[in-house]
Amino acid sequence: MFPEQLKKVIQDIFYQLSNTQQDSISNKEERLANLSRQLQSLQTKNRKLAEILQRVAEKLCRELYNKTGEHRCSPCPEKWKWHGDKCYRFCSDSKSWQGCEYFCIAENATMLKISTQEVLEFAMPQSYSEFFYSYWTGLSRNGSRQAWLWTDGTPYSSELFEIIIDFTSLRSRDCVTILNGKAFSKDCKELRRCACERRAAAVKLESLH
Amino acid sequence: MFPEQLKKVIQDIFYQLSNTQQDSISNKEERLANLSRQLQSLQTKNRKLAEILQRVAEKLCRELYNKTGEHRCSPCPEKWKWHGDKCYRFCSDSKSWQGCEYFCIAENATMLKISTQEVLEFAMPQSYSEFFYSYWTGLSRNGSRQAWLWTDGTPYSSELFEIIIDFTSLRSRDCVTILNGKAFSKDCKELRRCACERRAAAVKLESLH
Repeated sequence: MFPEQLKKVIQDIFYQLSNTQQDSISNKEERLANLSRQLQSLQTKNRKLAEILQRVAEKLCRELYNKTGEHRCSPCPEKWKWHGDKCYRFCSDSKSWQGCEYFCIAENATMLKISTQEVLEFAMPQSYSEFFYSYWTGLSRNGSRQAWLWTDGTPYSSELFEIIIDFTSLRSRDCVTILNGKAFSKDCKELRRCACERRAAAVKLESLH
Repeated sequence: MFPEQLKKVIQDIFYQLSNTQQDSISNKEERLANLSRQLQSLQTKNRKLAEILQRVAEKLCRELYNKTGEHRCSPCPEKWKWHGDKCYRFCSDSKSWQGCEYFCIAENATMLKISTQEVLEFAMPQSYSEFFYSYWTGLSRNGSRQAWLWTDGTPYSSELFEIIIDFTSLRSRDCVTILNGKAFSKDCKELRRCACERRAAAVKLESLH
């Protein structure tokens, strides 16, 4: 064979082999892109399904919970009441206002805040007590000339409820307690029951299906 | 260059090229297999999510439906009552027993079948009427010496309810009607209201979230 012929033959083989493998690579790349797209669309679908499931599960849990005031699916710990997107604890321990603040923090919670009509309508009925057990709320002020503030720093709105102040007392009355549907300013050192709140977790799906 | 040397050089290049492409192919094959696995596991997860969602949605819909006896989420057509996994229609059209059979079929349904305690407890209260409007059920027989059969061919169980037969009448009384919680055998040609049933569809998820 002449070198020129040899060169030609080798080039041909080379070219064919290269082409076949290149085809195989292109084909695989196409399948990879295709699978990636499928995977992505399925992931989106999955996320949406999970979101819808969470919403539907929460509605079902609320229906079941509201029937009897409790249900295993509740997103709140035992002894905590579920309302809206929060859990509330009205507990029987009596402490100073400061003591209640620490108590709530230890429960991974904050003191009861009543800043909407809805929460007002839920919280006030909890304060009815024939033995005059009242609850400390998160509302307080730094002396009688200061503004009433919730523990998160937001101001009190007098449109929502009135704070009944006992002017006859000589002691400072800078913390707000609720009793029988009304709010009173009282001496922060007095021992009263603690009311705490915290964000509700996700409902317990496994108790629903 | 001597031919031997040339051959060696070409072989080397050939070998390297081939190896590089083979590596690329192997690598892509591995990624393909990996993506396929991911896709499969996601599909399984998706199917499970969809199943759980369907179950939770049905429970929620039943809660909402049972509150008022109706809800947009109901898997039954308008005017049909939802009970268990079936839809029931107790309609005010009066027809012969045969007429009711055709009426139900036209509604993509069959005549009312009472073969469980649960259905009995649901269906009988529907038959209370101060104007004595009774409903034909799917129970009939081919003459007084034959067995009572539901339209799907299953036999009547006397343990579930009694069929009250009026022996004083001379006419044949081979079809069963329900009225005020009781079952009576009556002349199939008499005009009575139709009671139909059909399998419930899936609850309307879009009315739930």
